[in-house]
Amino acid sequence: MIVAMQETASEQQIEQVIEHLVRLGFSVHRTTGERQTVLAAVGARIDFDTRNLQVLSGVQDVHRISAPYKLAGRSFRPEGTVIVFANGVRIGGKEVVVMAGPCSVESREQIFTIAERVGKAGASGLRGGAFKPRSSPYSFQGMGLDGLKLLREAGDKFNLLVISEVMEISQIGEMLPYIDIFQVGARNMQNFNLLRELGKIKKPVLLKRGIAATLEELLLSAEYIMSGGNYQVILCERGIRTFETYTRNTLDISAIPVIQKLSHLPMASDPSHGIGIRDKVAPMARASVAAGADMLLIEVHQDPDKALSDGAQSLYPEQFATLMDELRIIAPAVGRTIAKSQ
Amino acid sequence: MIVAMQETASEQQIEQVIEHLVRLGFSVHRTTGERQTVLAAVGARIDFDTRNLQVLSGVQDVHRISAPYKLAGRSFRPEGTVIVFANGVRIGGKEVVVMAGPCSVESREQIFTIAERVGKAGASGLRGGAFKPRSSPYSFQGMGLDGLKLLREAGDKFNLLVISEVMEISQIGEMLPYIDIFQVGARNMQNFNLLRELGKIKKPVLLKRGIAATLEELLLSAEYIMSGGNYQVILCERGIRTFETYTRNTLDISAIPVIQKLSHLPMASDPSHGIGIRDKVAPMARASVAAGADMLLIEVHQDPDKALSDGAQSLYPEQFATLMDELRIIAPAVGRTIAKSQ
Amino acid sequence: MIVAMQETASEQQIEQVIEHLVRLGFSVHRTTGERQTVLAAVGARIDFDTRNLQVLSGVQDVHRISAPYKLAGRSFRPEGTVIVFANGVRIGGKEVVVMAGPCSVESREQIFTIAERVGKAGASGLRGGAFKPRSSPYSFQGMGLDGLKLLREAGDKFNLLVISEVMEISQIGEMLPYIDIFQVGARNMQNFNLLRELGKIKKPVLLKRGIAATLEELLLSAEYIMSGGNYQVILCERGIRTFETYTRNTLDISAIPVIQKLSHLPMASDPSHGIGIRDKVAPMARASVAAGADMLLIEVHQDPDKALSDGAQSLYPEQFATLMDELRIIAPAVGRTIAKSQ
Amino acid sequence: MIVAMQETASEQQIEQVIEHLVRLGFSVHRTTGERQTVLAAVGARIDFDTRNLQVLSGVQDVHRISAPYKLAGRSFRPEGTVIVFANGVRIGGKEVVVMAGPCSVESREQIFTIAERVGKAGASGLRGGAFKPRSSPYSFQGMGLDGLKLLREAGDKFNLLVISEVMEISQIGEMLPYIDIFQVGARNMQNFNLLRELGKIKKPVLLKRGIAATLEELLLSAEYIMSGGNYQVILCERGIRTFETYTRNTLDISAIPVIQKLSHLPMASDPSHGIGIRDKVAPMARASVAAGADMLLIEVHQDPDKALSDGAQSLYPEQFATLMDELRIIAPAVGRTIAKSQ
Repeated sequence: MIVAMQETASEQQIEQVIEHLVRLGFSVHRTTGERQTVLAAVGARIDFDTRNLQVLSGVQDVHRISAPYKLAGRSFRPEGTVIVFANGVRIGGKEVVVMAGPCSVESREQIFTIAERVGKAGASGLRGGAFKPRSSPYSFQGMGLDGLKLLREAGDKFNLLVISEVMEISQIGEMLPYIDIFQVGARNMQNFNLLRELGKIKKPVLLKRGIAATLEELLLSAEYIMSGGNYQVILCERGIRTFETYTRNTLDISAIPVIQKLSHLPMASDPSHGIGIRDKVAPMARASVAAGADMLLIEVHQDPDKALSDGAQSLYPEQFATLMDELRIIAPAVGRTIAKSQ
Repeated sequence: MIVAMQETASEQQIEQVIEHLVRLGFSVHRTTGERQTVLAAVGARIDFDTRNLQVLSGVQDVHRISAPYKLAGRSFRPEGTVIVFANGVRIGGKEVVVMAGPCSVESREQIFTIAERVGKAGASGLRGGAFKPRSSPYSFQGMGLDGLKLLREAGDKFNLLVISEVMEISQIGEMLPYIDIFQVGARNMQNFNLLRELGKIKKPVLLKRGIAATLEELLLSAEYIMSGGNYQVILCERGIRTFETYTRNTLDISAIPVIQKLSHLPMASDPSHGIGIRDKVAPMARASVAAGADMLLIEVHQDPDKALSDGAQSLYPEQFATLMDELRIIAPAVGRTIAKSQ
Repeated sequence: MIVAMQETASEQQIEQVIEHLVRLGFSVHRTTGERQTVLAAVGARIDFDTRNLQVLSGVQDVHRISAPYKLAGRSFRPEGTVIVFANGVRIGGKEVVVMAGPCSVESREQIFTIAERVGKAGASGLRGGAFKPRSSPYSFQGMGLDGLKLLREAGDKFNLLVISEVMEISQIGEMLPYIDIFQVGARNMQNFNLLRELGKIKKPVLLKRGIAATLEELLLSAEYIMSGGNYQVILCERGIRTFETYTRNTLDISAIPVIQKLSHLPMASDPSHGIGIRDKVAPMARASVAAGADMLLIEVHQDPDKALSDGAQSLYPEQFATLMDELRIIAPAVGRTIAKSQ
Repeated sequence: MIVAMQETASEQQIEQVIEHLVRLGFSVHRTTGERQTVLAAVGARIDFDTRNLQVLSGVQDVHRISAPYKLAGRSFRPEGTVIVFANGVRIGGKEVVVMAGPCSVESREQIFTIAERVGKAGASGLRGGAFKPRSSPYSFQGMGLDGLKLLREAGDKFNLLVISEVMEISQIGEMLPYIDIFQVGARNMQNFNLLRELGKIKKPVLLKRGIAATLEELLLSAEYIMSGGNYQVILCERGIRTFETYTRNTLDISAIPVIQKLSHLPMASDPSHGIGIRDKVAPMARASVAAGADMLLIEVHQDPDKALSDGAQSLYPEQFATLMDELRIIAPAVGRTIAKSQ
């Protein structure tokens, strides 16, 4: 913590700030310049609200000098985290992992058809929502547990890992037998009670960035999960809200290299939600791999015009296969290959 | 729904879009202009994702013509909603209601001291957090149920309504005996499972706007609660995220008159969270009343430098009393008075 | 400047950073903590790009400790700036000054009618555009010099100060004889060549905040004008771009108390542009005065449905008169009165 | 224009709106539904302010059905615009064009060294600022005309096209003999007087998107230039302002495919300004090509630590050469190659 005092601060004010910092457990180093005194406070606390210093009299400005997270930071595991699954798929390693599937599981026929198609094209995992958070109370809310079972069956048949979204604490136990990765959606990125519970389990969690969240906030949310003991966290960019209205959200591609510098956790990209319109999904998926993403999540539907949710952003299976071919061209530019599932 | 076809759209494309709309249950009126065909689709569905039309071939643009909410809209109850409490306080009526108190309940002595001071200054309600959502897993997480009991006791003793934040479904039953108003925080504005459960109870809910939420999204979240049968919803502006860094958030004062036009629900303002720094709270509270707010939520702490959370944005009790005097001057400019609790 | 070194930084890296800072003219104070070294660099340079330090090896983070502006800062003139006009009007003093008029000057009859009405209601100044920056090349672009002359005549007749927007350097000389205050629009807030030229004249400049500008950037732009010798600068909040679509922009009322703390310059508010819709202008004007604004700019038109620009946000003259009455009720709450022009 | 009337609108109100539209030159088609009347107004005006209808009584909502630009729209030239230079370089064609160079021209030695290095690595053009818009009045403001002459000499020697930024009208004539492309910076995207003058010349203009501009606004600004007769406009994404603070701006990669759908104009990307930190420039440049960019602008400096501006975001020449090799791997994934200058 750096506290810059005002040029007009009195000696008494400076001493009061020092006492305050010492009381909070910091050790304080004082620099008295010609015009201004600067205090450097060092210590173990990482949860401090700097505004509490900012309101003390004589204080001009307060800056953190250390990140408010520890376990999620790159220095905790400089070599990077690789998440390894029983079937040999590795997220965070040299291979880029692609998971694909419909927004929602809608029927046995639908999910089996899509699973077969995306597996054949080279996906390593199958995505599909069973519990759907919808912004309107009048929309389709998902197939629930029945959807999860179908997802698992389809994943097993086509040798695909299975990922699905968890929306509340009571669903964790229910989902555990059926999925390989828990997905936390953008709206739940700061549902801290849910994150805390996910810290107690032994399965990987893919944590999506909130639409107005900073990368520091994303890492703090990862810290919640990790502080419970679950270090298998994958971060995921899925688009932020900006002023642009032609696209649903703005996929922040720069989050990929930035997170990879700040953190050791694998970094995924979800261009389907990020951009929200089918014909822009492939360009953004290609851009994600070119920028270094460890994993992609892509929505695919065999009949998107009839999809019960998010059909507009789902690729046709043949578009997905073409995209996979393009990604195989791009990956070597970043020293990688695209993982093969079978 | 208005579907504007591209100038180059073929007759076949136009007919396919019409069929698609009819299949969805809309009735369609077609306007053929010199250069362009425009389709007006009317019908009962309000949960439609316009992007599903936007991807059809020949379509240029799609616009909703009706709001995606019904119960929360002004036309549902043009005269406005007034929420009446047993002790006679009315939110949404001619009097502006002020509720004040600490960010977190910390001890019996703390909450009783503050309750007495804010009651004396003219507050009608006591606020105080028992379950705290904190962005760091290492921060103070609240007193829980014990805090709620203290809050109730203090409210009863000084004739103040009691409001506190609910963070997850399992807390609803626990909180029910102790509070008069459930508060839903900004981070939970789109926690739809929680909103649905709050729709089943018979107590008022104050719903805070998310930091990146539009007012339409706020009204859609209110619709979730109301569609369950609970029409006692108070909306609350508490600051949105902007590029400005001198303030914690930017309190969007314009949300007050806009919501009052779009909706019949009472509209509150929380300048403490909105601005985040003590000496800006009073100006923003005054501005809220001048813009027509029905209710204010203000953080007050008798020793803010030692507060366990958000001390930097809490007023001293004497600052709160001065603010109440200023509000009494301003209220008549909008044809109102400040409610008196005792 | 505070430079926090990484925990893993070598002694050699630390020394290189120190040398770099010394070469730039800073004097450096070093604090060696248990885990981390922190360098405090003090010196006269205020234009330094901190990113140039951030890329040096071993550096973790760099923070400014002083504002990048001097002349615009509160400490330059702690008692505040009051701009005094020949007719006795004072901006920044105890009286709140209101200027009103049409978006564009359209005809002699129009501007005289409006000037009479707003003067009678209590305005001290007349606003009106002669050169109009329009986002479409096909829109009305203003009456130019003829409009300025009419504005001056109307101002003189009804004892009103005259304010109009300058859009490029070549207009400065042309406008000089006819106006009392140069207005710089939001889109030109960072047109540094224009600002530099305005620093050389002897007339007050009202500088509007850009729609995505931070308050620090606004103050830096004021610094451009002041560094040329013209200290008569009025700052003006006119709305920032946010995600909300019901309003044209979001008037950031909190900018008023924040600027008044950071700077000695008078602070104005322009609710008409900020909100963009007629029936929200009065609430936002009231809120501005309640928050402490020194000056208001309000659009008034006697026939807004036929206005050539921005009619939708113009008040009818009788609405303006009612607003002035409301402001007279509110001003005493902040220890002020509304200036009277005649 | 679509005008949706309120459900409660009277016949008289509907007729008044129709009359209003007819007076403005629209022809109006009326659809009377069970609950609501909808008016479709078609006609030649494209500069209409929809808010002027929104304030009429009985109106619920107003939507444009056509874009407010014509010349910049894709349908004006469906096959796309290719800008061809005397030396055979083509922007907007099958080859991706890369231009590189320092932020500012600083000396003969500097610009010749860099020109040689970037030319050898495969750049087709040389960038370099002579007139610098700096947010602080105390920063280096560029070499002016002398810088331009050096830029031209270096470009000629190494067979590179030359691009430099124009900041005000008076510089256009001065720059004309020395440059091949005028660059308009983000801060001047809505400097309409400057745009209008650039519409009168016969040289290509690269127009950068403002940091808070929508893509529609970018296209409207292009329309300003084109409406003067200069159709040689290149659009450029250079980063928008978001809440993220680790990066200077957020490069909106999705702008590339969106613009290519909406407009026929070539689309460039400037990752150096977009991201602002050296080690993120290459990932974002790769992502831009993977997303389909027609052109890249890259900052390169042979001694970035001593650069007078923006050193932190400049690549070393050897980093630039490595990047060019990576781009050559990626381009075939989008059916393209990287242009070779010699």
